[in-house]
Amino acid sequence: MKTLVTNIGCLQTPVGSYSHKGSKQGLNEKYNNVEVVIEDGIVKEIVANGKSDGSAFDQVIDAEGKLVTPGLVDGHTHLVFGGYRQHELAMKIAGAGYLDILRAGGGILDTVRKTRDASEEALYEKSAAFLDEMLGFGVTTCEVKSGYGLTMDSELKMLRVINSMKENHKMDVVPTFMGAHAIPPEYEDKGDEYIEFLCKEMIPEVKKQGLAEFCDIFCEEAVFDAAQSRKYMQAAREAGFDLKIHADEIEAIGGTELAGEMEATSAEHLIAIKESGMDAMAAGGTTAMCLPATSFYLGATYAPAKAMIEKGIPVAIASDFNPGSCPSLNLQLAMNLGCLKYRLTPEEVLTAVTINPACAINRGDLVGTIEPGKQADMVIWNAPDFEMVCYRFGSNLAEKVIKKGELV
Amino acid sequence: MKTLVTNIGCLQTPVGSYSHKGSKQGLNEKYNNVEVVIEDGIVKEIVANGKSDGSAFDQVIDAEGKLVTPGLVDGHTHLVFGGYRQHELAMKIAGAGYLDILRAGGGILDTVRKTRDASEEALYEKSAAFLDEMLGFGVTTCEVKSGYGLTMDSELKMLRVINSMKENHKMDVVPTFMGAHAIPPEYEDKGDEYIEFLCKEMIPEVKKQGLAEFCDIFCEEAVFDAAQSRKYMQAAREAGFDLKIHADEIEAIGGTELAGEMEATSAEHLIAIKESGMDAMAAGGTTAMCLPATSFYLGATYAPAKAMIEKGIPVAIASDFNPGSCPSLNLQLAMNLGCLKYRLTPEEVLTAVTINPACAINRGDLVGTIEPGKQADMVIWNAPDFEMVCYRFGSNLAEKVIKKGELV
Repeated sequence: MKTLVTNIGCLQTPVGSYSHKGSKQGLNEKYNNVEVVIEDGIVKEIVANGKSDGSAFDQVIDAEGKLVTPGLVDGHTHLVFGGYRQHELAMKIAGAGYLDILRAGGGILDTVRKTRDASEEALYEKSAAFLDEMLGFGVTTCEVKSGYGLTMDSELKMLRVINSMKENHKMDVVPTFMGAHAIPPEYEDKGDEYIEFLCKEMIPEVKKQGLAEFCDIFCEEAVFDAAQSRKYMQAAREAGFDLKIHADEIEAIGGTELAGEMEATSAEHLIAIKESGMDAMAAGGTTAMCLPATSFYLGATYAPAKAMIEKGIPVAIASDFNPGSCPSLNLQLAMNLGCLKYRLTPEEVLTAVTINPACAINRGDLVGTIEPGKQADMVIWNAPDFEMVCYRFGSNLAEKVIKKGELV
Repeated sequence: MKTLVTNIGCLQTPVGSYSHKGSKQGLNEKYNNVEVVIEDGIVKEIVANGKSDGSAFDQVIDAEGKLVTPGLVDGHTHLVFGGYRQHELAMKIAGAGYLDILRAGGGILDTVRKTRDASEEALYEKSAAFLDEMLGFGVTTCEVKSGYGLTMDSELKMLRVINSMKENHKMDVVPTFMGAHAIPPEYEDKGDEYIEFLCKEMIPEVKKQGLAEFCDIFCEEAVFDAAQSRKYMQAAREAGFDLKIHADEIEAIGGTELAGEMEATSAEHLIAIKESGMDAMAAGGTTAMCLPATSFYLGATYAPAKAMIEKGIPVAIASDFNPGSCPSLNLQLAMNLGCLKYRLTPEEVLTAVTINPACAINRGDLVGTIEPGKQADMVIWNAPDFEMVCYRFGSNLAEKVIKKGELV
């Protein structure tokens, strides 16, 4: 199968080999008036426009002089969940506090209840529809976490849904086990026991069944502390998982220092990160997975993404799509926030939604740039340049999405 | 032509006769399990679901148990313009100030230059595509302002484009003359002379040609002061126009007090409004046209919408779509900001994007609610309730849009 993407006005992509240690944030290559030759879903070469003989191809896709970038990579989602929590927004606006919402049966445990109650089929159908919508926004690879089950059966159920999407959906899906997302009601006030259960039973079982590549934990005041997180991450590493950690979202309680020390692949949120956390992440080669749409929805402050780039930390931007703190799956909106709130340049933003998250989910060799040998995942934008994508917020500017050389 | 919209899970709409003096912000009626009978594009009745005989209708639209609201009304746009200004965003992020951008040929006068240079046909084609996209977001009526020409010929050209859309496009379009949008380069440091020209020549000519229903002016420090605004508004009123005024966006220099005193139909922006401005608007029956996406894009503070509601001022939320301060035409995103930043309830937001802006563009008798006798403009949402629409920001939840009884 030979495909030609022709009449590309501007092809903008991060380039070069990538190392976790030593980010090249914002170094984009821009090729004007080119075409891309694709064979069997893999980029073969980028050549001057018009150089190829169209009749030699099975399929010719006309970019009509527009911008082409790599397919976007959403490196942090919780998109498998039961129910929605729209009533909490109305309650919050009406003045309800966190505890009022909990007392009314809301909060994360509401999602846990509804996720446990949902059938595997229903969860698959709902989640796959989210993936369809994300593809429409130009996302061609994403990470998905478990963590709304918090029992052996329901966590395995979530992971089976995620792996089933990985098998069957056009989207490339990377599964993460996040049994340590919250303390389940059954373990109220017994966080240590729950960590013990996760380390001794769930992590080995998830590994045995081959259902995840990463383990993630929510290190936060009133959830899991740094000591518990260390224990969990050590067990995960010993079992053969790569590591992620939700750290310094509200309080800096040692999560980012731990992430760096343990050379976690990424640390997430980072709103409250301190100098010592940044230094540790830079030293450990840990990617900063920044989630600006969550700050937006919660009315919180924004992670110091620019400062982290200056420290040499690779910065990624992800949607954090989840039913509580960020009910948006629109990665383009997170990119707009990357410009408007993080003050990143468009080039830094493109790096943050392509090669950096690709590397942070162990797909850096496969996707995240347009270059020979990589998977032909691309977006043709209804825009002449990437600045336009950053500027026209609110509109979906992804016009055509190409996954493994084929139009989605 | 008889149409039935059946299987409506929840129909939510503002109701009742509307008076500028005495807002009913947030008073929504919710009907569960109903269907709407439409004849010749007009709502005939709302009845219990299943009551009507489907075979008696030319067309049956199945709402599949979902939410239905009135079509949205965007009461403030500048959607006819030449060029784009995406490079200014990148310049701003890179640290350029307002004057740097002006010196580099940017700012509103860049748009003026490109709008003057554009052909009427090119402007029509570009603007009509924006209207198409807005319809997809559920907007069925909108206001459009001139104001990027600032010469007799180019302002008349813009107004002809707007009126041509009014004639030919499915969207209901209401034209506003805004020759007083900026001081044109030809009148640098001669604001009084330009106002004189507007009052003596342009306003009468626009009236003579019947190209606008409203006149609008930008009352702001370094643009037009309150005395100039008063003169312009008096000339407009005498010519038979209704009045709008961009007031208190950055500095409160008397614009809202003037709006109330002159009983302007609406005042726009209102970020810096003071108590005296609110009192004047409440007394004058002036609608507050709030533009939260502009605050968002500029990183500015947000208008005190809640306080204005408490004062009895009808509050509307509009997109302010324009190429400088708000390159978003997504009214749903402005609605999300209405909840998240203005802290309005979902019910108040629905009022703010339906009946209140309808009244503020003199279409309150025609659209803005679903009730017998009104135009059958409706949105079927991919949502069970309006809270979901406010909550799932970033996704376009408008599933089917009905304009004058027909699917768009």
